[in-house]
Amino acid sequence: MDLPPGNVSNQSGIAMNSIVRRGLTVIVILFSGCAAVAAQPMAGFDTSHAAGERSLEARFDGAIKAENMRTWMKNLSSHAHHVGSKHDEENAAYIASLFRSWGYDTRVEEFTVLFPTPKTCLLELTSPVTYRAGLAEPPLPEDTTSGQTAEQLPLYNCYSCDGDVAGQLVYVNFGVPKDYEELDRRGIDVKGRIVIARYGGSWRGIKPKVAAEHGAAGCIIYSDPRDDGYFEGDVYPRGAYRSEFGGQRGSVADMPLYAGDPLTPFVGATKDAKRLPLKEARTLTTIPVLPISYGDALPLLRALGGPVAPVEWRGALPITYHLGPGPATVHLKLEFSWDMVPIRDVIATLKGSGEPGEWIIRGNHHDAWVYGAGDPRSGLVSMMEEARGVGLLAGRGWHPKRTIVYCAWDGEEPGLLGSTEWVETHAGELSGHAAAYINSDGNGRGFLSAGGSHTLEKFVNQVARDVTDPETHVSVGERLRAVEILHAPVPERKVLRERADLRIGALGSGSDYTPFLQHCGIASLNIGYGGENGGGSYHSVYDSFDHYTRFGDPGFVYGVTQAQTAGRIVLRLADAEVLPFDFENFTETIALYLQEVMKLADDMRDETEEMNRKIQEKSFDLSADPTGVWITPKGREPVPFLDFSPMQNALALLKGSTSRFGDAWKAAGAARGPLPAETARSLDRLFMDFERSLITKEGLPGRPWYVHQIYAPGRYTGYGVKTLPGVREAIETRRWKEAGEQILVASGVLEHAAGLIDRGTSLLKQ
Amino acid sequence: MDLPPGNVSNQSGIAMNSIVRRGLTVIVILFSGCAAVAAQPMAGFDTSHAAGERSLEARFDGAIKAENMRTWMKNLSSHAHHVGSKHDEENAAYIASLFRSWGYDTRVEEFTVLFPTPKTCLLELTSPVTYRAGLAEPPLPEDTTSGQTAEQLPLYNCYSCDGDVAGQLVYVNFGVPKDYEELDRRGIDVKGRIVIARYGGSWRGIKPKVAAEHGAAGCIIYSDPRDDGYFEGDVYPRGAYRSEFGGQRGSVADMPLYAGDPLTPFVGATKDAKRLPLKEARTLTTIPVLPISYGDALPLLRALGGPVAPVEWRGALPITYHLGPGPATVHLKLEFSWDMVPIRDVIATLKGSGEPGEWIIRGNHHDAWVYGAGDPRSGLVSMMEEARGVGLLAGRGWHPKRTIVYCAWDGEEPGLLGSTEWVETHAGELSGHAAAYINSDGNGRGFLSAGGSHTLEKFVNQVARDVTDPETHVSVGERLRAVEILHAPVPERKVLRERADLRIGALGSGSDYTPFLQHCGIASLNIGYGGENGGGSYHSVYDSFDHYTRFGDPGFVYGVTQAQTAGRIVLRLADAEVLPFDFENFTETIALYLQEVMKLADDMRDETEEMNRKIQEKSFDLSADPTGVWITPKGREPVPFLDFSPMQNALALLKGSTSRFGDAWKAAGAARGPLPAETARSLDRLFMDFERSLITKEGLPGRPWYVHQIYAPGRYTGYGVKTLPGVREAIETRRWKEAGEQILVASGVLEHAAGLIDRGTSLLKQ
Repeated sequence: MDLPPGNVSNQSGIAMNSIVRRGLTVIVILFSGCAAVAAQPMAGFDTSHAAGERSLEARFDGAIKAENMRTWMKNLSSHAHHVGSKHDEENAAYIASLFRSWGYDTRVEEFTVLFPTPKTCLLELTSPVTYRAGLAEPPLPEDTTSGQTAEQLPLYNCYSCDGDVAGQLVYVNFGVPKDYEELDRRGIDVKGRIVIARYGGSWRGIKPKVAAEHGAAGCIIYSDPRDDGYFEGDVYPRGAYRSEFGGQRGSVADMPLYAGDPLTPFVGATKDAKRLPLKEARTLTTIPVLPISYGDALPLLRALGGPVAPVEWRGALPITYHLGPGPATVHLKLEFSWDMVPIRDVIATLKGSGEPGEWIIRGNHHDAWVYGAGDPRSGLVSMMEEARGVGLLAGRGWHPKRTIVYCAWDGEEPGLLGSTEWVETHAGELSGHAAAYINSDGNGRGFLSAGGSHTLEKFVNQVARDVTDPETHVSVGERLRAVEILHAPVPERKVLRERADLRIGALGSGSDYTPFLQHCGIASLNIGYGGENGGGSYHSVYDSFDHYTRFGDPGFVYGVTQAQTAGRIVLRLADAEVLPFDFENFTETIALYLQEVMKLADDMRDETEEMNRKIQEKSFDLSADPTGVWITPKGREPVPFLDFSPMQNALALLKGSTSRFGDAWKAAGAARGPLPAETARSLDRLFMDFERSLITKEGLPGRPWYVHQIYAPGRYTGYGVKTLPGVREAIETRRWKEAGEQILVASGVLEHAAGLIDRGTSLLKQ
Repeated sequence: MDLPPGNVSNQSGIAMNSIVRRGLTVIVILFSGCAAVAAQPMAGFDTSHAAGERSLEARFDGAIKAENMRTWMKNLSSHAHHVGSKHDEENAAYIASLFRSWGYDTRVEEFTVLFPTPKTCLLELTSPVTYRAGLAEPPLPEDTTSGQTAEQLPLYNCYSCDGDVAGQLVYVNFGVPKDYEELDRRGIDVKGRIVIARYGGSWRGIKPKVAAEHGAAGCIIYSDPRDDGYFEGDVYPRGAYRSEFGGQRGSVADMPLYAGDPLTPFVGATKDAKRLPLKEARTLTTIPVLPISYGDALPLLRALGGPVAPVEWRGALPITYHLGPGPATVHLKLEFSWDMVPIRDVIATLKGSGEPGEWIIRGNHHDAWVYGAGDPRSGLVSMMEEARGVGLLAGRGWHPKRTIVYCAWDGEEPGLLGSTEWVETHAGELSGHAAAYINSDGNGRGFLSAGGSHTLEKFVNQVARDVTDPETHVSVGERLRAVEILHAPVPERKVLRERADLRIGALGSGSDYTPFLQHCGIASLNIGYGGENGGGSYHSVYDSFDHYTRFGDPGFVYGVTQAQTAGRIVLRLADAEVLPFDFENFTETIALYLQEVMKLADDMRDETEEMNRKIQEKSFDLSADPTGVWITPKGREPVPFLDFSPMQNALALLKGSTSRFGDAWKAAGAARGPLPAETARSLDRLFMDFERSLITKEGLPGRPWYVHQIYAPGRYTGYGVKTLPGVREAIETRRWKEAGEQILVASGVLEHAAGLIDRGTSLLKQ
């Protein structure tokens, strides 16, 4: 699943930093009190252990071979390997065999999931002219696998319902809620009509959901050349971008409600799991939805009349974009085989020698929509090479202190099925044992992108300082900081220059970290490279070995860098004397989020007041061109002042606790050197429990599967994160009572977290 | 000339306001001290005279007939009537005969000007494929005059030099200086090459000038569908926008150097005027330049290789925009007939009964590139109907106090020839007699657009309060304020709501006010309607009667509104007991401009420092994708702190003088009612001299024809205004010594102005 290459940064809000700033020695409060190495601290290690770890990492780096990644990518992407396909099964077996050969205790865990595939896909323009959409991605001589049409899943959106609908067409831009407000302004209603939305602006699954909420009968999603076609760059095979008849497959399940198999929320989709009847599966769409290419969209859009679309809505097709409704009418017929199919996760374990009960879990999915060279193969082969390197170290006498678990997930594309069903199945064990989950997905040339739990922000910054960018030969953190400084507006630029650590983004959804982080409260990271691998092959047949090795990461140079980065993260997490978590950046980030939600309420109050004033002043009426239809927006009830004081007080508690812990930590390090093993173990437990303390049993309002109170995918953004989601989404949707309740929930969580930190302080002072 | 319809607002920064704000009575310090009518003051009139004037205006309104405008537009645009054409001569005679029939003392003044027309226009793509540009606008059955191809000037840029050049093609976006900085970043040089620029971003004449400064051998300008073609709306004849082979003619003289005939700067182009030899005419281009349609541009742009253009540079053609250079090579051959042709201004005078030596001059041009229904016919026929209405009043016993002069200018399109040569010929008389110049050009459906001298800002606001918008039935000022409030960011919105007057924009160039305002220091206004008349017929054969009456202003409803607006301005200026000038808004505006130039220097200092820092930090190097060429920008010398104190002190003087004058004015009104005739006459003289006090003999650095120290067209914007131009452009071009000198010049001008105001105060106290 993940995001298209080149867009990695949009997902998690890339943010990393090298700690050693130009000409400045940054003192970071860490385990070791030794001034001599303070410039190069390694969280979780004292000086002597850090030196050993560095030497281990050097050996690890030396083991990483680009050629392996190339070989595996070629092999694994030689045939289509979507969920349920023969090659998907073969790939799982092949991956498992490799892990076994590297010394891992490897098993394949199988689940049975709902996976519909198309029987009928029909889309036709029925008036004012007729056109039948080809819905086919043509083979290209320059692309070896594109000709294997018999094995390719057609263009479709997984978990669309069946449907046979006809009606007038309406263009709805990205099809997000504010687009419907623009349509309202022009008096255009989609009820009973078929909407056509372009990809972008939200996760695709949001589009049919919002269309259905507005009464639409069907939904078409197309790839506008503005977004990943010729407007952005030369199209395949000349360049990397989406060509005329290239399309984007993808899941449209209502993932913000719950991830995983639509029939088994909360429980693993084991053979005999209790399943919902199909009609009760709430993540399926309620209207049929189909993705098409811009070659197929052009005749439809050209046939639209009605008002000209707002300027921001217009794509790069050589037409005037109209909104409709009609005169274009379309007929959309979709029928699916609602099959139950097996998915196979490869789980490879290297048992810890010191704390085998603490698990460092590392995963990347292996299934794809078609050939998936970029998504997910590029990330997978890098993780495999990383695992081979770790295995090699283990074969030569090194043993990780903690247990390392490598996972190659199946069924990610339809809806994080493999990871979610595994997490749901093993939730109890994971709650007891999981220390952290490190995810990756597609990878490519460019800049480090890191998102995740802010207790790991300092740690990730240290890793980014220690990995060298292959293009510029500075650290990947330093390069990232340079590019961020180049594009940042003034206030952010100042922070980028002055803050020791680059910020890491919060995680929404779109890859396999979701069940770990947001359903189980396991501290998670998502790591990858990208930004120089732009293109438009995402979820098309052209996401192939040929495409990737020309445009994604020729030579797998960033595959090596990714292995060095994620490998370091795994090795340090596995070996550290105490888990390299930190509360300082976490607390500072929470303070930012609180500021944001308070500002959100204030801004909404101002905007509502201003909008109501403009309505009263008749600004809309007086500005309107009477030759068109312009409906004045409805006034809205004023935004009340919310009582944020419980959160402010909880934050104050958290700040105090964090500060005392920092002092105790420094004192412990300075006074005694390495911590006693028992203290270290207790601290580990505390760090593991800390992310768990951020979840609640009840979960978020209306979506109890999501239990994390700091990070969640947005109900109307999909992949896009909402931080402090209970509070933020209540405000965004103007549910003031709920906002008040959620402020109390979030405050309780923060108070609980502060209490845990205080326990840590006590441990250090014992 | 003017600007394309729908863009009127960009030229002068539309800004008007109704004085009566919702629910508030605004007290404006004015001639009359009577509280009862303070809510509806009329500058220059006391209460009793104001009532008479209102009754006169009501009669005037009653006289205005849309049907006349329609008849005249149809007649005047029935054939091509560019400078030197038969129909241009016939039009002048016809217009003159009408003015005579309305009772005006009318003469046709003739000048002889350089007016090149094409003998050869050849543009061909010579590799990697060949294409010969058609350079023709096809006749359309829906457009009556488009088939008269024999009489139409071909697509060309007037005052391009002859040339026969060949070379690699480079795409330069708008072709303004900062675009060449982007090319530098990518290591692309245009030397000896041919650039292709799209219309927009600056006046067209800037493009060949900047291209030549960078060593280009030739320049092609095309109309991208992003800017006025299908991206913006349906193309003609379905809609109003520019179709595939529609092009934009236009002058490319270096008008920011001087306006008018290239051979006679500073003097009228009378028969025996001393003329420059052609090769010394500095406003001609130094490289050949040709405008083409997007139909002709597409094969050229499609053949470009090299880096992909920056995202902001990309238009709406269905291609990936590349920069080149090459592999596309083109051959451009242009040969012109360098003819001397007659131009004919129609000058129609209605002599004043009280102060015949004070002239209110009102003009609109009558020449066009082809049929010119929108540009300039729409403004012209409205002015003609206005003049007919004024003539009617005069025939029924009313006599203006001051002399009214209506002017229909010839030769505006090639470079404000008719107005400039007339002004240069009559400069002496004008300096003695001209009280104000009121210009218009194209007109259409929409919102009031008013720009000009800020001594007239309050006055224009009062007129805008008294004219009713035909679509919304509120005043045109109130409607304009509504639309501005709707789109303004917060700080501007606050000003829009709280300031009694809407701001009027400063004038740059692009129509016939330039010689009056910027060469002679005559207070000027430019008035028109637009914003709901969007389209792409500007300077094409499709700017026709058929196009205008479908899309420009069907029914000439806004032609009537424009006549009521400009007519009121003329009538009040002509009848006022004392000229309705005001210093308060002028001084406040100067304070804003001073703030702006000080901020400009500060911002440039910060930006330079930041840029130098990024260079030093290697941000550019580290962010660059090594698969492309990325040249790190050169560092720049730091921006020094300039001594603005002379201007600050001059402004303080000006504020004091303005405040004292306001008090004296109020006292004079309150104490005595109408001013004695002698005082009124002296004040008139003072108001007339005031704008003259803002000019200097030496003019602006490097362009002595432009003598106004507050308003000038920008050297690198063309139409776009630069306020406090000497100071602002010295800073923008980093000439610090010159900036210091120009600060003293501007300060001197403001001190002089303050002295004049003090004289006015003394007059009032006598």
